[in-house]
Amino acid sequence: MGLSAKEIAQHSSRESCWVIVRGRAYDVTEFLPEHPGGEKIILKYAGRDATAAFDPVHPPDTLDKYLDKSKHLGAIDKADLEAVAEAEKTRVRTPEEEAEAREDEAVAEARALMPPVESCYNLLDFEAVARRVMKRGAWAYYSSAADDEISLRENRAAFQRVWFRPRILVDVANIDLSTRMLGSRVSAPFYVTATALGRLGHPDGETCLTKAASRHNVVQMIPTLASCSFDEIMDAAEGPGNPPQWLQLYVNKDREITRRIIQHAEKRGCRALFITVDAPQLGRREKDMRAKATALGDGGSNVQKTEGHSTDVSQGAARAISSFIDPSLCWDDLPWFRSVTRLPIILKGVQRVEDVVRAAETGLVDGVVLSNHGGRQLDFAPSSLEVLAEVMPVLRARGLDRRIEVYVDGGLRRATDILKALCLGAKGVGIGRPFLYAMSAYGVEGVDRAMSLLKDELEMDMRLLGARSIDELGPELVDTRSLGSHPNGVPEDHLSRLAYDPLQTPAQKSKL
Amino acid sequence: MGLSAKEIAQHSSRESCWVIVRGRAYDVTEFLPEHPGGEKIILKYAGRDATAAFDPVHPPDTLDKYLDKSKHLGAIDKADLEAVAEAEKTRVRTPEEEAEAREDEAVAEARALMPPVESCYNLLDFEAVARRVMKRGAWAYYSSAADDEISLRENRAAFQRVWFRPRILVDVANIDLSTRMLGSRVSAPFYVTATALGRLGHPDGETCLTKAASRHNVVQMIPTLASCSFDEIMDAAEGPGNPPQWLQLYVNKDREITRRIIQHAEKRGCRALFITVDAPQLGRREKDMRAKATALGDGGSNVQKTEGHSTDVSQGAARAISSFIDPSLCWDDLPWFRSVTRLPIILKGVQRVEDVVRAAETGLVDGVVLSNHGGRQLDFAPSSLEVLAEVMPVLRARGLDRRIEVYVDGGLRRATDILKALCLGAKGVGIGRPFLYAMSAYGVEGVDRAMSLLKDELEMDMRLLGARSIDELGPELVDTRSLGSHPNGVPEDHLSRLAYDPLQTPAQKSKL
Amino acid sequence: MGLSAKEIAQHSSRESCWVIVRGRAYDVTEFLPEHPGGEKIILKYAGRDATAAFDPVHPPDTLDKYLDKSKHLGAIDKADLEAVAEAEKTRVRTPEEEAEAREDEAVAEARALMPPVESCYNLLDFEAVARRVMKRGAWAYYSSAADDEISLRENRAAFQRVWFRPRILVDVANIDLSTRMLGSRVSAPFYVTATALGRLGHPDGETCLTKAASRHNVVQMIPTLASCSFDEIMDAAEGPGNPPQWLQLYVNKDREITRRIIQHAEKRGCRALFITVDAPQLGRREKDMRAKATALGDGGSNVQKTEGHSTDVSQGAARAISSFIDPSLCWDDLPWFRSVTRLPIILKGVQRVEDVVRAAETGLVDGVVLSNHGGRQLDFAPSSLEVLAEVMPVLRARGLDRRIEVYVDGGLRRATDILKALCLGAKGVGIGRPFLYAMSAYGVEGVDRAMSLLKDELEMDMRLLGARSIDELGPELVDTRSLGSHPNGVPEDHLSRLAYDPLQTPAQKSKL
Amino acid sequence: MGLSAKEIAQHSSRESCWVIVRGRAYDVTEFLPEHPGGEKIILKYAGRDATAAFDPVHPPDTLDKYLDKSKHLGAIDKADLEAVAEAEKTRVRTPEEEAEAREDEAVAEARALMPPVESCYNLLDFEAVARRVMKRGAWAYYSSAADDEISLRENRAAFQRVWFRPRILVDVANIDLSTRMLGSRVSAPFYVTATALGRLGHPDGETCLTKAASRHNVVQMIPTLASCSFDEIMDAAEGPGNPPQWLQLYVNKDREITRRIIQHAEKRGCRALFITVDAPQLGRREKDMRAKATALGDGGSNVQKTEGHSTDVSQGAARAISSFIDPSLCWDDLPWFRSVTRLPIILKGVQRVEDVVRAAETGLVDGVVLSNHGGRQLDFAPSSLEVLAEVMPVLRARGLDRRIEVYVDGGLRRATDILKALCLGAKGVGIGRPFLYAMSAYGVEGVDRAMSLLKDELEMDMRLLGARSIDELGPELVDTRSLGSHPNGVPEDHLSRLAYDPLQTPAQKSKL
Repeated sequence: MGLSAKEIAQHSSRESCWVIVRGRAYDVTEFLPEHPGGEKIILKYAGRDATAAFDPVHPPDTLDKYLDKSKHLGAIDKADLEAVAEAEKTRVRTPEEEAEAREDEAVAEARALMPPVESCYNLLDFEAVARRVMKRGAWAYYSSAADDEISLRENRAAFQRVWFRPRILVDVANIDLSTRMLGSRVSAPFYVTATALGRLGHPDGETCLTKAASRHNVVQMIPTLASCSFDEIMDAAEGPGNPPQWLQLYVNKDREITRRIIQHAEKRGCRALFITVDAPQLGRREKDMRAKATALGDGGSNVQKTEGHSTDVSQGAARAISSFIDPSLCWDDLPWFRSVTRLPIILKGVQRVEDVVRAAETGLVDGVVLSNHGGRQLDFAPSSLEVLAEVMPVLRARGLDRRIEVYVDGGLRRATDILKALCLGAKGVGIGRPFLYAMSAYGVEGVDRAMSLLKDELEMDMRLLGARSIDELGPELVDTRSLGSHPNGVPEDHLSRLAYDPLQTPAQKSKL
Repeated sequence: MGLSAKEIAQHSSRESCWVIVRGRAYDVTEFLPEHPGGEKIILKYAGRDATAAFDPVHPPDTLDKYLDKSKHLGAIDKADLEAVAEAEKTRVRTPEEEAEAREDEAVAEARALMPPVESCYNLLDFEAVARRVMKRGAWAYYSSAADDEISLRENRAAFQRVWFRPRILVDVANIDLSTRMLGSRVSAPFYVTATALGRLGHPDGETCLTKAASRHNVVQMIPTLASCSFDEIMDAAEGPGNPPQWLQLYVNKDREITRRIIQHAEKRGCRALFITVDAPQLGRREKDMRAKATALGDGGSNVQKTEGHSTDVSQGAARAISSFIDPSLCWDDLPWFRSVTRLPIILKGVQRVEDVVRAAETGLVDGVVLSNHGGRQLDFAPSSLEVLAEVMPVLRARGLDRRIEVYVDGGLRRATDILKALCLGAKGVGIGRPFLYAMSAYGVEGVDRAMSLLKDELEMDMRLLGARSIDELGPELVDTRSLGSHPNGVPEDHLSRLAYDPLQTPAQKSKL
Repeated sequence: MGLSAKEIAQHSSRESCWVIVRGRAYDVTEFLPEHPGGEKIILKYAGRDATAAFDPVHPPDTLDKYLDKSKHLGAIDKADLEAVAEAEKTRVRTPEEEAEAREDEAVAEARALMPPVESCYNLLDFEAVARRVMKRGAWAYYSSAADDEISLRENRAAFQRVWFRPRILVDVANIDLSTRMLGSRVSAPFYVTATALGRLGHPDGETCLTKAASRHNVVQMIPTLASCSFDEIMDAAEGPGNPPQWLQLYVNKDREITRRIIQHAEKRGCRALFITVDAPQLGRREKDMRAKATALGDGGSNVQKTEGHSTDVSQGAARAISSFIDPSLCWDDLPWFRSVTRLPIILKGVQRVEDVVRAAETGLVDGVVLSNHGGRQLDFAPSSLEVLAEVMPVLRARGLDRRIEVYVDGGLRRATDILKALCLGAKGVGIGRPFLYAMSAYGVEGVDRAMSLLKDELEMDMRLLGARSIDELGPELVDTRSLGSHPNGVPEDHLSRLAYDPLQTPAQKSKL
Repeated sequence: MGLSAKEIAQHSSRESCWVIVRGRAYDVTEFLPEHPGGEKIILKYAGRDATAAFDPVHPPDTLDKYLDKSKHLGAIDKADLEAVAEAEKTRVRTPEEEAEAREDEAVAEARALMPPVESCYNLLDFEAVARRVMKRGAWAYYSSAADDEISLRENRAAFQRVWFRPRILVDVANIDLSTRMLGSRVSAPFYVTATALGRLGHPDGETCLTKAASRHNVVQMIPTLASCSFDEIMDAAEGPGNPPQWLQLYVNKDREITRRIIQHAEKRGCRALFITVDAPQLGRREKDMRAKATALGDGGSNVQKTEGHSTDVSQGAARAISSFIDPSLCWDDLPWFRSVTRLPIILKGVQRVEDVVRAAETGLVDGVVLSNHGGRQLDFAPSSLEVLAEVMPVLRARGLDRRIEVYVDGGLRRATDILKALCLGAKGVGIGRPFLYAMSAYGVEGVDRAMSLLKDELEMDMRLLGARSIDELGPELVDTRSLGSHPNGVPEDHLSRLAYDPLQTPAQKSKL
């Protein structure tokens, strides 16, 4: 006989908070402040069944992995469980549940009118479609970035400050897109980079990306914060020749957890370890905050006013220094990583020349990803393309370009973007949001088509550029003179514009 | 027995103008042309009770301070006073009073729908809310700036031409925002800079800023043109550890008045004297002029057509060289200031390298504030950030950077802005309008939240930048290559755009 | 007894075209192709009374001056004249006359609601008002410029790429705006530059400008193509101290006409001769062409289809190489000018450094006006400010800056613009359209106020800049680093934008 | 007796596809994947009469030229032919045919209201009119370009980054526009460049261009993909002095076809051979794809779902490496071309300095056209103007500028654009789309007027620039400082803007 629903229901406050997930009870009181999604969302389900809210965003092994066994309270009494389910069904919906139901209907309607996947001709088309058919909260989570989203848009703009110098009269009958990354042969010079919470966009979550990637023999980097479990993702690979998979890692304060994750991935056949170094604290994304506040039904506020004190919970939580991500991670930690795995180690999120050189000189890492985390962390962090253009000549001058591989991500939408990065010295490029949008709108088929489009564009553009294979791409094919010139690279600051009250000319008199 | 209402009523022209304030009569005839707000607004109340209009924008000690005792006519007869009050109540409202009443209603309605303070996520949000809920005249006064408001917007834009070069893999578990300014320890590297007429935005005026500043242990600079009295402001500080307060000074032609102000401030515990040097004449702000003209009910005109001559009064007054601000203030005056106070002396409004160097070389001043007065004085004055980037290397080269502290203000809205200024060598930054807007919308709580937001952003951004304390911020963390490139820094010139008539393509024939 | 109306009416074709003006008949057949306003407008009145159309745009002495005496056919018979007038009155109005009458009504209505002159706070306000209340054709004539009007707008934009470096702590109690131009003392460093056809904007034409200029003691440059006669303008000057007046000259192929004009002006007291050198052919202004074509009632076409051949008349005429302006004018002509007058000679419309140097080295000229004719001639001609910044250092290096005075015009709207030009070395600046707009909306009072505003702004801005007199303005007070950087100086190309068809994202399916 | 309609009707699938054109049957099964317009459009007519669709876009000799004789099945039985025609007439129209009929009506209506040709004052006006009156598919085909159409618009923008330095006081009474190109004297320094499928815009196709060009004595370059036959075009030249014509060549994999085309052209009197080198594969133009997909009635999709496999046909086809254009064409092929013709050989589509130098050094070519194919091939290919400014000094330094003539095309719309290119060293400029638009709206008269406008503008602008003949145009007359500065040259990226979701300020509460 298990726990009674009645007993659980008594633990419904921040002081003692129990929840039911898949028929088992858990004491999450101490965990509340560490929840990356904020404590408020948990407290909504305090003392009752949270499964419906839990499932879409958490891998099944989440509680096993992150909640101490002592907090696993055991199975709920079977009879009670049915009663709980029944009660849930007949419960009067809260206004915010009503609103959610209305949004579900609107989404369904929008999806019914969604254009066929074949009418998407480029990655931005998927984004435009996804924006129309995704739930508002999911869209906000994927699309938002730091502060005024200047870096987010600069990431795109930077590519548009580089021009080509195409070569003519080259025999381009045959084009070869394949290349090597970290020792593995892949069919194209791009990979699916790690992004969190795939099931917000599609019920099958990250496995959509896996299936499409394996069909195309391109690499997928598996995120720590996936909403499918690591093994679900590894298992989803389709087709004959499994392409390599990589692991993206947020380093936990508890290094034992981190060690287990790494070694499990290595054992499952992951081919590289990407340690995120640009997120000692998760960034603040106001578009996401505003969407969440509205969804939580508190009229634009994230505040809890229970018990006489007012704390900005959801915001605080999102930015909390939780044990999930260790803010004290530093250069001194690298030897430990080298000691626990034989995988190539790559630092993801390097943002300045000095740190790339330092990484190469440690002799402990095999590569870096120049990245500003999709503009989601520090606004006005430079675009990876600009750092790349600055760093490669330095690496070459010091003979370090053979010691590490340099990757970039952020803002890539066109094959021309990829070619620009490769001309400037990148081994490959990561693409994140575009595949998420393709997945959110069209599932595996969307991602598949997005990859086909990129490959078709790549082949054509290499032909037009006069380069037959990836190794024929070099700096002589691009004009980067305007890359470092930011005045125009500064995307519009929407909030300033909205807040600014323009001057007026004298008004005509009123006729009345 | 006091003066009779009847007698006072006879002095209702520019030739002889008496007004009643708080039951006492004053002869302001000679003062009319010196009134910083223009004579027109006083003449509206000539010969009657001006208290309701006087109170919201003047500290209680204004008349004592600035109007010669000989013009204090004494108390009005008590019986008369009641009659006057009664008459006021039943008086038929003028059309412009009707309009004002309608505006009051509209403001009340807008405030009823105002989003909760917690839904403001950044300083620009407060501005957007304030614009909707403030009285039009108050909004215009706060938000307006010189000419085409190019410097106003350049102040903001300049920050957006500086990019970060973030450092990774630094142990940023602990972040310390505190710093020293002019010898005092403060909790954060920003201060509330001086802005005039706080009670236009909120009935409690500048004391809202004081209370929030003291809660947060950040400095407030007290303005000469505050609408609370200096002592009211000093007394409003809350909480255990009073943060330092500074005095902003417009130098009066009558140096005795100036001496009294300085010495009173020093005695009350003010810790520094900021002498404004960028306003020998108060600037012309057309948005404000247009709002005032409309409010004064003269259909867009500021003109008085009495007595056969037409003079542009309100404009003239606003720009008059009154005795309030001495246009002859110059370098030769500095020794006198040094002689009347032991407070650190800082020049506020320095705008070029040569003058910073000169200030430092006098040996008489302890600091400068690089500022263009929030863009309110000379349009196309440079942003403080650009001057800062130019001046610090010069000061360092001449060993003067240790002799004076350099502050900046104007255009700061984000923690990233503050960090950019500090990286470039500022000791601290002044923030003005954003706190006024927060105050106008939400009072003390608004300012409190604005400061919390800034501090939270600062902590996060320092973490993401790889700097653990203020002294770890240096020029190696920013990319200023585009700062001096103005073409894009020129904000849109709204009046030109409104006046320009675009070319057209050939029109289709009419169907009729 | 004079000519009979009947006889005149027989000369109503391009082959023989007579018109009546003020009761006298003229044979203008040969003159048709030389008419600067195009032959079409004359042909409308062929064989009948043209006085009503002639008067608003021509000085009374036009026919005496430009039409050979042999074409003056003499007075019309008095009785006939009355009959003609009567017939005109009762004549059924043509559709285009109907349209014109409707436009007159609309203009009258707009003028009734026009804001009072005091609500204009700057020169752009006058432009905005004038645009609303002027007749469409007049507005188009004044406001139009060459091709895409890029130079027109660059003229304004160039000033906005120059920033100030204001000086502080200068005793600016007293400001002196007066200066010397070509030997004469004037009250301010700007002058009314020459613009054509003043009576399109106001019935009193150029004399409005004269009256305001003389009130303010600023110079007026009198245009060759004025719609008041030269003497009318000279006579209109008001007030005690007549300010100097200058003559702008289009050089006629018939040098005798030119000599007469110059010597008459010198005799009447003109103080300088400005020879226009940027208009060997009058520019093409499409906005004006389109407005004219519409007004002429030919549905957007300027074509005459009479007699089986189709020629684009109005356009051709406007651009014809008429004898009014001699396209062969060249450097070799300068000694002749020097021989016919003692007036200072200034070349107006110089556009490159080499030509300024050459002008100075001839020893024959006393000054140059850097100008691109208000953007009305060659599109993409540089702004005068940019040429000025380039030319002054060269002149100084060669010691030529004392030999010639350098003036600029085009795009000035603010006192800050004037100060920038003076800082860079200009002796004075010409202002054209803004005064025309002020005149068109408000007559003399408008121009008067516009000048007052400029002077008030100048005084204030000099105070804020730390310059007490014109000779204290120097290059150390401005930052021109961005002036030569055109990318952003290129104003929007409206026609391209209108013609461009933007890409679209995939459309949702239709609901039906 | 010929083939029976019945038999033909049996070949109506991709496996066996016969079509009737002008009463003859053809087996196009093997040709399907090579059709530059995609196989889908052919399959629509599989097994039936395709004449109505074939005629508007194909020259009459197409099938003879490109389809192997073995696939010419012979004449259809005469009786059957009439039956087929009858059946076509009475056939129920498909929904897409209905839609097409509706579009035809809308076009007819728009053309009825089309402004007269004389109301077009510049080339952009023709574009604006054409956009309103062309069929959507034709407009999309002409106006579309690669990817985000950045190069398309940069082509225009580049010209606007070059400014003039006009010369004054030159005797410009006489202006001579004529010049020599590849040995022939022509009346103006521009030519009609090759563009495909003229009959999409006008029933008379390319011959409209021919007629206008011959009237004006300007060169026409005849396209390989014309929709009139080569001979039709050659025969269409009007007037006394036939201007030279040039041949544009896509090199076929089958060099024999290519040889025949060249030698035929030479025999007919063509004066030069322009080999296209920027199109080893035809570019992807999404605007065109989207228009086609919609027109094909598949709701935005280009997909065929027959037989269980889904292939993106139309897109694939457009980009297929067909035998029409040989992707293996390279430098080694040049001697062969030199061996088969005595015509001057010019490489069209050179895009970098190195390739211009190499071309000159081969000694085999007489010129190059700097071109990015109107922005239709590789997006972010540089504008020809920018390459020109870079290449001419190099050619001069190496003494190669006398060995080859350099032409440019792309983005020219104004005479000022032409003059800028000539000042920078171009021998002449090609103009494509603008003449197509003029032709599409107004036929020969439109092209004629467009050329007149250009010549008139050229004459006036040379006068204003102080250049009397083409050889007086030199680099000293232009300011190219901003040309290489791309930040502003980057036209707006519409898809990104459409996809981007701007930040919002806090919302007011709802009133309800």
